[in-house]
Amino acid sequence: MNILVTGAAGMIASKLTLRLLKDAALNGTPVDRIKLVDVVPPEPPPGFSGKVETVALDLAAPGEATKLIAERPDVIFHLAAIVSGEAELDFDKGYRINLDATRLLLEAIRAAPDYRPKLVFASSIAVFGAPFPPAIPDDFALTPLTSYGTQKAVAELLLADYARRGFLDGVAIRLPTINVRPGRPNRAASGFFSSIIREPLAGQNAVLPVDEGVRHWHASPRAAVGFLLHAASLKSEQLGNRISLTMPGVSCTVGEQIAALRRIAGDKVAARIRREPDPMIMRIVGGWPRCFDAARATALGFRAEATFDDIIRTHIEDELGGKIAA
Amino acid sequence: MNILVTGAAGMIASKLTLRLLKDAALNGTPVDRIKLVDVVPPEPPPGFSGKVETVALDLAAPGEATKLIAERPDVIFHLAAIVSGEAELDFDKGYRINLDATRLLLEAIRAAPDYRPKLVFASSIAVFGAPFPPAIPDDFALTPLTSYGTQKAVAELLLADYARRGFLDGVAIRLPTINVRPGRPNRAASGFFSSIIREPLAGQNAVLPVDEGVRHWHASPRAAVGFLLHAASLKSEQLGNRISLTMPGVSCTVGEQIAALRRIAGDKVAARIRREPDPMIMRIVGGWPRCFDAARATALGFRAEATFDDIIRTHIEDELGGKIAA
Repeated sequence: MNILVTGAAGMIASKLTLRLLKDAALNGTPVDRIKLVDVVPPEPPPGFSGKVETVALDLAAPGEATKLIAERPDVIFHLAAIVSGEAELDFDKGYRINLDATRLLLEAIRAAPDYRPKLVFASSIAVFGAPFPPAIPDDFALTPLTSYGTQKAVAELLLADYARRGFLDGVAIRLPTINVRPGRPNRAASGFFSSIIREPLAGQNAVLPVDEGVRHWHASPRAAVGFLLHAASLKSEQLGNRISLTMPGVSCTVGEQIAALRRIAGDKVAARIRREPDPMIMRIVGGWPRCFDAARATALGFRAEATFDDIIRTHIEDELGGKIAA
Repeated sequence: MNILVTGAAGMIASKLTLRLLKDAALNGTPVDRIKLVDVVPPEPPPGFSGKVETVALDLAAPGEATKLIAERPDVIFHLAAIVSGEAELDFDKGYRINLDATRLLLEAIRAAPDYRPKLVFASSIAVFGAPFPPAIPDDFALTPLTSYGTQKAVAELLLADYARRGFLDGVAIRLPTINVRPGRPNRAASGFFSSIIREPLAGQNAVLPVDEGVRHWHASPRAAVGFLLHAASLKSEQLGNRISLTMPGVSCTVGEQIAALRRIAGDKVAARIRREPDPMIMRIVGGWPRCFDAARATALGFRAEATFDDIIRTHIEDELGGKIAA
């Protein structure tokens, strides 16, 4: 099996690649080759050089998508994207990458004779915008409140039409906010959800810019990789025409996140969170989804963590070698 | 006030133009000039030549949208579209006109400095696809089952993002199936909804290809023109970020349509309908919406006919000079 990963330099894509290489198979079929593509050269995981090819290119440039699929990958994980904040600041860049590049990829696939790959598209809960019911159902309207969310929603609709027409076998998975994101703190409005856990566990202070009542929808990086792999295993008959799925997650408040941190790592670690309310972040986060009823995805076998405690434990295992900075 | 109408050669656009010229005003503001644009030269209504300019051009060709808005129309009625059946048969043409041309228009507006027109976009209930609840609510997911519906749904999302970013003042109205369509029978799958009323009233026979239990969502051409005019009057504060509105209509079965025809025109006219079940049309129509709860549009003042009897009476007044062929 040949696999193509776009946006391969990203955090989730890197973890997905490593998992595919370690498993040496995708849903039981041996993996022969993985092509990693990003606008910057993706770093291949050490020790697997024979199976991995890395390519740096701009998927939105004419002809590049056609070149990419020349070897007819069986499965495409399409993760390339301009993130939410940048797509809001740079309107043209967001549309160019998140919409035009996706459409060029779909068109390249449509133009290739006798080719019908599985395309797993990483969408986002940003396709939804307030006001919301208490738990957002699977058939809730897409009412994005960012250009990023709009671009993801449009890509979902295009993918569904290309799938319905038989040009490809598609599935879009709407990822929860990924928590705990490894690495350095960033300036994304959502960054604090991770940093209030990650920094204290690493012996550092973190800033909480919203009040503890803020509720949000979370899943770990490990769960996100599991979603992508499981999505690739689904048959089109299982999906029908509604190929976009809201992934399961943990709905909890910031206060519940902190209580989980205290249970797992103790009072001293939890005391490393400093409250500094930021009205702008509070306003942005106020429009975000809080809770979903991810009934379809759950029925189709997607699994997230059951509690935020589990999300913290996953982080300690996967990123901290099991150790907490006391 | 300057007004631009795209797709101006179409039936609804022609009626809209005539109404604007007769009223000589749009929502109380005098109309100075109307530009009618279509890929074929639109026919200006006789007697109003001083106020009307007609242009034949391909809105999807580079630079044309920019030329069109050079005179900065205050209100744009964007009705240009490839219809459902053709968009399904010709994938490229449907995307080119229904998606690319719309995006080029939005981009031309964004690029024009100090310009923020009102854009009224004619969307369609084809943005929805089965399975449905008994009455589709305003916040129901867009799950189109045609390329046409996909293109309309994508255009709605783009329009909402451009409006949210402040590039224009936008509103999308999802038109019901227009009934009774004047003119000759056509081969659209939905054609029979009109022809079973229009042909008998004109003394001709009509074919009914589905059973009488089929329920659908209807509004008259006069109501559709009213929706477009009312949409142009709405302030962005009234709409908020959800600028796409399902229009009100009459939900009735084919049997109820025929009963209304019998009440208004008598047994002899209603007897001109011949039953010829067509499995293909039955299958297509089976995926269409049957009934909506158009609560938001109704609260915002949009009004359709109350009964299918009213729809028939509107047709007799507007198209038949009040006369029925006995």
